[in-house]
Amino acid sequence: MAGNSFGEIFRITTFGESHGKAIGVVIDGCPAGLEVDMEFIAQQLQRRKPGQSAITTQRKESEAFEIISGIFEGKTEGSPITMLIRNEDQKPQDYEHLKEAYRPSHADFTYETKYGIRDYRGGGRSSARETAARVMAGAMAQLLLTKEGISISAYVSQVGNLKLEKDYSELNLSATDSNPVRCPDEATARQMIELIEATKAKGDTIGGIVSAVIQGCPVGLGEPVFDKLHADLAKAMLSINAVHGFEYGSGFKGSSKYGSENNDIYTTDANKKIITTTNHSGGIQGGISNGMDIYFNVAFKPVATLMQPQMTVTKEGAETEIKGKGRHDPCVVPRAVPIVEAMAALVIADHLLRLRSAKW
Amino acid sequence: MAGNSFGEIFRITTFGESHGKAIGVVIDGCPAGLEVDMEFIAQQLQRRKPGQSAITTQRKESEAFEIISGIFEGKTEGSPITMLIRNEDQKPQDYEHLKEAYRPSHADFTYETKYGIRDYRGGGRSSARETAARVMAGAMAQLLLTKEGISISAYVSQVGNLKLEKDYSELNLSATDSNPVRCPDEATARQMIELIEATKAKGDTIGGIVSAVIQGCPVGLGEPVFDKLHADLAKAMLSINAVHGFEYGSGFKGSSKYGSENNDIYTTDANKKIITTTNHSGGIQGGISNGMDIYFNVAFKPVATLMQPQMTVTKEGAETEIKGKGRHDPCVVPRAVPIVEAMAALVIADHLLRLRSAKW
Amino acid sequence: MAGNSFGEIFRITTFGESHGKAIGVVIDGCPAGLEVDMEFIAQQLQRRKPGQSAITTQRKESEAFEIISGIFEGKTEGSPITMLIRNEDQKPQDYEHLKEAYRPSHADFTYETKYGIRDYRGGGRSSARETAARVMAGAMAQLLLTKEGISISAYVSQVGNLKLEKDYSELNLSATDSNPVRCPDEATARQMIELIEATKAKGDTIGGIVSAVIQGCPVGLGEPVFDKLHADLAKAMLSINAVHGFEYGSGFKGSSKYGSENNDIYTTDANKKIITTTNHSGGIQGGISNGMDIYFNVAFKPVATLMQPQMTVTKEGAETEIKGKGRHDPCVVPRAVPIVEAMAALVIADHLLRLRSAKW
Amino acid sequence: MAGNSFGEIFRITTFGESHGKAIGVVIDGCPAGLEVDMEFIAQQLQRRKPGQSAITTQRKESEAFEIISGIFEGKTEGSPITMLIRNEDQKPQDYEHLKEAYRPSHADFTYETKYGIRDYRGGGRSSARETAARVMAGAMAQLLLTKEGISISAYVSQVGNLKLEKDYSELNLSATDSNPVRCPDEATARQMIELIEATKAKGDTIGGIVSAVIQGCPVGLGEPVFDKLHADLAKAMLSINAVHGFEYGSGFKGSSKYGSENNDIYTTDANKKIITTTNHSGGIQGGISNGMDIYFNVAFKPVATLMQPQMTVTKEGAETEIKGKGRHDPCVVPRAVPIVEAMAALVIADHLLRLRSAKW
Repeated sequence: MAGNSFGEIFRITTFGESHGKAIGVVIDGCPAGLEVDMEFIAQQLQRRKPGQSAITTQRKESEAFEIISGIFEGKTEGSPITMLIRNEDQKPQDYEHLKEAYRPSHADFTYETKYGIRDYRGGGRSSARETAARVMAGAMAQLLLTKEGISISAYVSQVGNLKLEKDYSELNLSATDSNPVRCPDEATARQMIELIEATKAKGDTIGGIVSAVIQGCPVGLGEPVFDKLHADLAKAMLSINAVHGFEYGSGFKGSSKYGSENNDIYTTDANKKIITTTNHSGGIQGGISNGMDIYFNVAFKPVATLMQPQMTVTKEGAETEIKGKGRHDPCVVPRAVPIVEAMAALVIADHLLRLRSAKW
Repeated sequence: MAGNSFGEIFRITTFGESHGKAIGVVIDGCPAGLEVDMEFIAQQLQRRKPGQSAITTQRKESEAFEIISGIFEGKTEGSPITMLIRNEDQKPQDYEHLKEAYRPSHADFTYETKYGIRDYRGGGRSSARETAARVMAGAMAQLLLTKEGISISAYVSQVGNLKLEKDYSELNLSATDSNPVRCPDEATARQMIELIEATKAKGDTIGGIVSAVIQGCPVGLGEPVFDKLHADLAKAMLSINAVHGFEYGSGFKGSSKYGSENNDIYTTDANKKIITTTNHSGGIQGGISNGMDIYFNVAFKPVATLMQPQMTVTKEGAETEIKGKGRHDPCVVPRAVPIVEAMAALVIADHLLRLRSAKW
Repeated sequence: MAGNSFGEIFRITTFGESHGKAIGVVIDGCPAGLEVDMEFIAQQLQRRKPGQSAITTQRKESEAFEIISGIFEGKTEGSPITMLIRNEDQKPQDYEHLKEAYRPSHADFTYETKYGIRDYRGGGRSSARETAARVMAGAMAQLLLTKEGISISAYVSQVGNLKLEKDYSELNLSATDSNPVRCPDEATARQMIELIEATKAKGDTIGGIVSAVIQGCPVGLGEPVFDKLHADLAKAMLSINAVHGFEYGSGFKGSSKYGSENNDIYTTDANKKIITTTNHSGGIQGGISNGMDIYFNVAFKPVATLMQPQMTVTKEGAETEIKGKGRHDPCVVPRAVPIVEAMAALVIADHLLRLRSAKW
Repeated sequence: MAGNSFGEIFRITTFGESHGKAIGVVIDGCPAGLEVDMEFIAQQLQRRKPGQSAITTQRKESEAFEIISGIFEGKTEGSPITMLIRNEDQKPQDYEHLKEAYRPSHADFTYETKYGIRDYRGGGRSSARETAARVMAGAMAQLLLTKEGISISAYVSQVGNLKLEKDYSELNLSATDSNPVRCPDEATARQMIELIEATKAKGDTIGGIVSAVIQGCPVGLGEPVFDKLHADLAKAMLSINAVHGFEYGSGFKGSSKYGSENNDIYTTDANKKIITTTNHSGGIQGGISNGMDIYFNVAFKPVATLMQPQMTVTKEGAETEIKGKGRHDPCVVPRAVPIVEAMAALVIADHLLRLRSAKW
């Protein structure tokens, strides 16, 4: 109801403010008996962590997470799993100047108006710091998916006007993490890095797109009519800070197509399994996975905090100038890759459990 | 859980199959005391109804809806509101040939695999017939919104490659219903109609885009962090049959922008109200409405049922040819306009009620 | 949120007012593939129906229910199941005198104050007529339970001061329906009937207790810590009109006991299955079923509508006299037996589905 | 779904095992702007704390709670409030002997069967240690209720066969905490203490009843038809460890009454407010509060851990003897008083927020 929970059976609730004591997550509904790979969770957090390279924010966030509950002798025990990261390296003085002014295209104004109170330190609850909690929870979900043979791979496919024109099937997705911008095409990656560095040098920021593919899903994930698999993926993605758009399968381009171009014809593979010859449906038909690859794009707007002066108003409506202090990302998409994967994993894990109730 | 409900406080559950006895909706959580304008509900249904013009399906659906519960002496009484439309003009024989074969890009295969059973008559539960229930419920929500001074206007902005390049602010949205394609620009509308007619003549179908704008929202709608207003709008839109994409504010184009271009600067209007000078944020910041117009695009793929032969397989995996019989839309977007409005209204009504719990 | 739904996975929403067009229920989450025994549903409705005997209300309710959706070729298809009973034999004139006055111990005053509007005809939404919808849904749930070897038997164990002192294990529960008061002990039943008749003759009403036993449950039903199986049963029972109390296992009597008396010692049966030697725990330990019989008592207050004059006030607070008109039960417990069974079945069916997500 | 959350708008999720790192709670949906009285929360925890007197367990639990999130400058900020208590004074060796054996009338057997894994240290998640999280959350809810003029008072009304025969209206409820058994009648309290001490001396335990009264509620709390206020109170109470029964208003005794005895006649008070002359309805009619006092009884079974040898079986079904080690309560009701108050506060706070959506 108050919006801090996600999922129906595999259900997470995140908590914590950017400059409060800690951020964290409770997972309620993770089945018992799953071995917890702490290394894997740490690794996912590491991928989201600021300060990994010259093109990301230099804020130093602790990577140390603590499991508070729900794990017994290395396995999930069926009770709520709580994970916590203490906030460190806080520089609240970097935010003191924001106490009175509303940062453009941030949540300062809307939060203060809605709640009558605002934690102005780094955006408080509205900070992307919250996504670390999602990454921890998503890593737990991914542990389940791995056991089911399901993999999720996200990567950067656009930064500013630089578009990776290749389809995911033409890319070596295991190369995604080999460069700091997380674009699996080395040549494009180099250009993207240059663009981000140039943008940063101007004190500006730039938008981009993360693409993702989910492979190995069984037929049957997704619930008609409102909880269609792609509807839940859309919500998951749009709930990530700075996301302004989502498309799956043929997406916006599909709107220009004829049905005779866009339809996916059924056939059978060598094992007599029913497949489609094309996959404009993006692995989902009628809201339910059909066993083909699920792929989608997530559009991120440019980061709102600029290292340039911008005009704004105070609470009282007086004009004032503001300029970003501290440490911020010039482009959010490289660090968004593990966040997109985490949210996708949460959706799939939840629907895997929901599928268990489809038949008697 | 099983996906047939939408909303948290203003919560609807739809039911019914395309060729079952009836389709309908229960609204639980509509506040008491609202006067019910039956004419308005009928009118919205009429707008969604097939057979309105030469460019839509000729299936004759009854427009007669019945209110079963929840209304007393013309007002909502706080109990569940149930609305029903009996299915008529059914031609199940049009579907007999689908008993064994899976229609390409339809839900036949996924439903049958998920549930082990399938109502093959017109798609059963997966049919867009279900959206009539949404339109009735959405009309109830719109009655609330009207009282709050909130209006929702959707219109067709693209059919195939024909794009309406104007922004909503340059259009006369009251003209939307003046032509059968529901594009408020008369010249573009004419072209679109021609394109749809030509497509229909070939037995083909074509995709398109519906754009929408919500005006008059208070500041504060939307819940951090998962139930961001745009995340709920995205889910609402992606849950509509044939939708493959959603973007709001600067959307996918915003991914190409610099922060300095995309940010919305705060200022005050003549009444000292805080507003933004531009609105790339699409009226939502940090997931919460900021009082500016909310606008978004919804991408529809081409209708999957073609009046051309297509190859497919049977349940047993044998190849077979299939061809649409009966009455189908060559392009779904004109009739999707009231559906997009209905889903948007449901999201806004729900968040208006949720906002009531934000402060003590 | 607005309270008309029950259950998490096997989830029902009831709708309809006592003197509206119809009452009904939507079941969302009933697994696909279940054969629907229409005869059984009709039979359960018949058991709840007024006018069965001299000791129940003579209101004639239609027994004709209609399945609107969710069933295809005699089986559940995984989509919402909607069942409807049209209201007939309405005598709204019997209620005209209630338009202004609040009936004592009814919901008239609280509904009108909460909602600002009230359907005064027979209590509107607050009428026990609503329980017919529960009985239909519960019958669907019972069809599932039967397949799992689970049975539910309720019976009347007290009317006024007449208590059946025997434990359920000493009773022949198949005899419950052999008399109109639904007490399986024939001698006690006769006394109860006499008491009810005498009460009716005075224009008065009388309370009673329904006891129930659920047999054949697997170990594992119930979710720690809030959705303990007995907590959900308690809520289910207290949600039935006129119920004022619930106890399971050793219940209120257990509060007088020593631990050494009340504990259930584990042992094994002939098949090496772990069982308990006694069952003061009522088949539930730590909120989770342990495989033993689940039994509980449900306390009903006397029906509030009397055929005697009672003082009350009008909306404006003026004193006035009121007297029941029409047709009312002198004692509600005989007809409550199938309602208790239905609500218990809904709880168990829901937890059977929830159990499917306990382990990976 | 997995049962660790409670409430719809004011919604809590508790987490933590008895001998894990910590226990805690996330409150999502607490309105913004509420001043947080840390002293009051500490005080409520103190009342639940073991080791307060000779008649409670001597386990030393830390009383130190930490607020992790959701509070800014002393006020709730509308984001999730997380509270944590680190577990200390753990003596896991006290539980080593339970690794293989199932304690009678505990959750050991049911948890292990349900989840395939069991934290045997002090009951793990099933331990009443979890109720400390409820008390913290309940204290937050009580802060809201106090602002609305609503008070909740629970007290011990029965220990074993010692019953306090007085009605709450005859008692001085402010005296409840003046004795360790929390019975507001001094003479009865003394007898109860003696009984508990004698029971403890035998290594035995004993059950009891907690009664409670809620005063100052507005008319309108509770939602028809399933979320009746008393149904939610029943579930709340039955979800507390060791509770076997709940009754409100005339309760089980009401089942023996005639309608003419049990009905509450409406009248008006000096201020023309509509009240009832009696209150057998326990302040709730049709599931909705009527403004009168809400009162109820909660039956607790005797604590299952005895300091006497008991027979049981191992996982493999082998017979074995078991005896409580460590520190346990001989009678749980004195410490249950603040837990009952906390759960009642959570129900009322939630329904206060739900009431905000009743009318347009």
